[in-house]
Amino acid sequence: MPYVNIKITREGATGEQKAELIAGVTDLLVRVLDKNPATTHVVIGEVALENWGVGGLRVQAFRAQSQG
Amino acid sequence: MPYVNIKITREGATGEQKAELIAGVTDLLVRVLDKNPATTHVVIGEVALENWGVGGLRVQAFRAQSQG
Amino acid sequence: MPYVNIKITREGATGEQKAELIAGVTDLLVRVLDKNPATTHVVIGEVALENWGVGGLRVQAFRAQSQG
Amino acid sequence: MPYVNIKITREGATGEQKAELIAGVTDLLVRVLDKNPATTHVVIGEVALENWGVGGLRVQAFRAQSQG
Amino acid sequence: MPYVNIKITREGATGEQKAELIAGVTDLLVRVLDKNPATTHVVIGEVALENWGVGGLRVQAFRAQSQG
Amino acid sequence: MPYVNIKITREGATGEQKAELIAGVTDLLVRVLDKNPATTHVVIGEVALENWGVGGLRVQAFRAQSQG
Repeated sequence: MPYVNIKITREGATGEQKAELIAGVTDLLVRVLDKNPATTHVVIGEVALENWGVGGLRVQAFRAQSQG
Repeated sequence: MPYVNIKITREGATGEQKAELIAGVTDLLVRVLDKNPATTHVVIGEVALENWGVGGLRVQAFRAQSQG
Repeated sequence: MPYVNIKITREGATGEQKAELIAGVTDLLVRVLDKNPATTHVVIGEVALENWGVGGLRVQAFRAQSQG
Repeated sequence: MPYVNIKITREGATGEQKAELIAGVTDLLVRVLDKNPATTHVVIGEVALENWGVGGLRVQAFRAQSQG
Repeated sequence: MPYVNIKITREGATGEQKAELIAGVTDLLVRVLDKNPATTHVVIGEVALENWGVGGLRVQAFRAQSQG
Repeated sequence: MPYVNIKITREGATGEQKAELIAGVTDLLVRVLDKNPATTHVVIGEVALENWGVGGLRVQAFRAQSQG
């Protein structure tokens, strides 16, 4: 039954990395909560940098400020 | 008030099919819970196949394995 | 693969009504998009009236204003 | 800790408008609930008009009907 | 059309504070994107502290570590 | 930046199991995508069995049918 939604900024995650995230999260739910992999769904949402804010700023501005 | 989010894999759902889903879900909420259609929102999210995992695999791999 | 999240205000929806919503949404996705019921998940989220706002007001205040 | 997801129809919101939404929501959470901006995330999701329904119709049809 | 989901840890936010968040977010969307308040929905989700993790730890542990 | 929402049925997951999920998902995102743990949020949502449907049935009925 688990449904896992992973939201990340769109910064070039490869197909292999996504496959690794899907496998890793599913294994974790099987190991920790004994969930059935066949009914465990993992959905990755990639968000444009311009659409993600933290610290009141858009990500690029937040990162620039943090490295300032 | 209802807000319904329908997440499907991006596999060519047409405008007419989306309209049918929106109408069908809204009618269901009116019939079953007497909700007001004017404040019932239905949002369809289409997810790239590469970004949806089930059974620890990405959808294409899961389907191939199931048909194997 | 579909994952459907139905958010409604918590106003006493019965188990039978929830079962009807789950069956109805699943049938709709099977009929319109030929989806597999066994991998179609429907999750109902019930939200306290105090936590839902529309028109800049909490639901009870919005309804009172609309009937005013 | 707050995570705010703002779903809007994709109708040309500019980078500056998105920055204003991110700053405004973060300031609101700081002022009202004394939240830490550095751990307050705001994510904007833009939805194609074809994928958003209200009143049982897709947005364009609903707007046309409302202005009819 | 906007639908805004505000997820916060369940730490005693009052009805008045929730009303202030709902009004503030709606005003912001009206001012910045000229949205219609009557179709702007704001839903507040309160999450048990035990169910929210950051820095690989549950919130209480993360806060204790940050103040350590 | 990642925000991970893990939706599971409410079936007695312990505090330790939740801590293990939070740590495991965070470690995975650090290892696979080199994400910063301090800005990686993991939120666990527990859904009443009556509110989760699969195969057109509520979970208890689906499980009973599968074991039938």
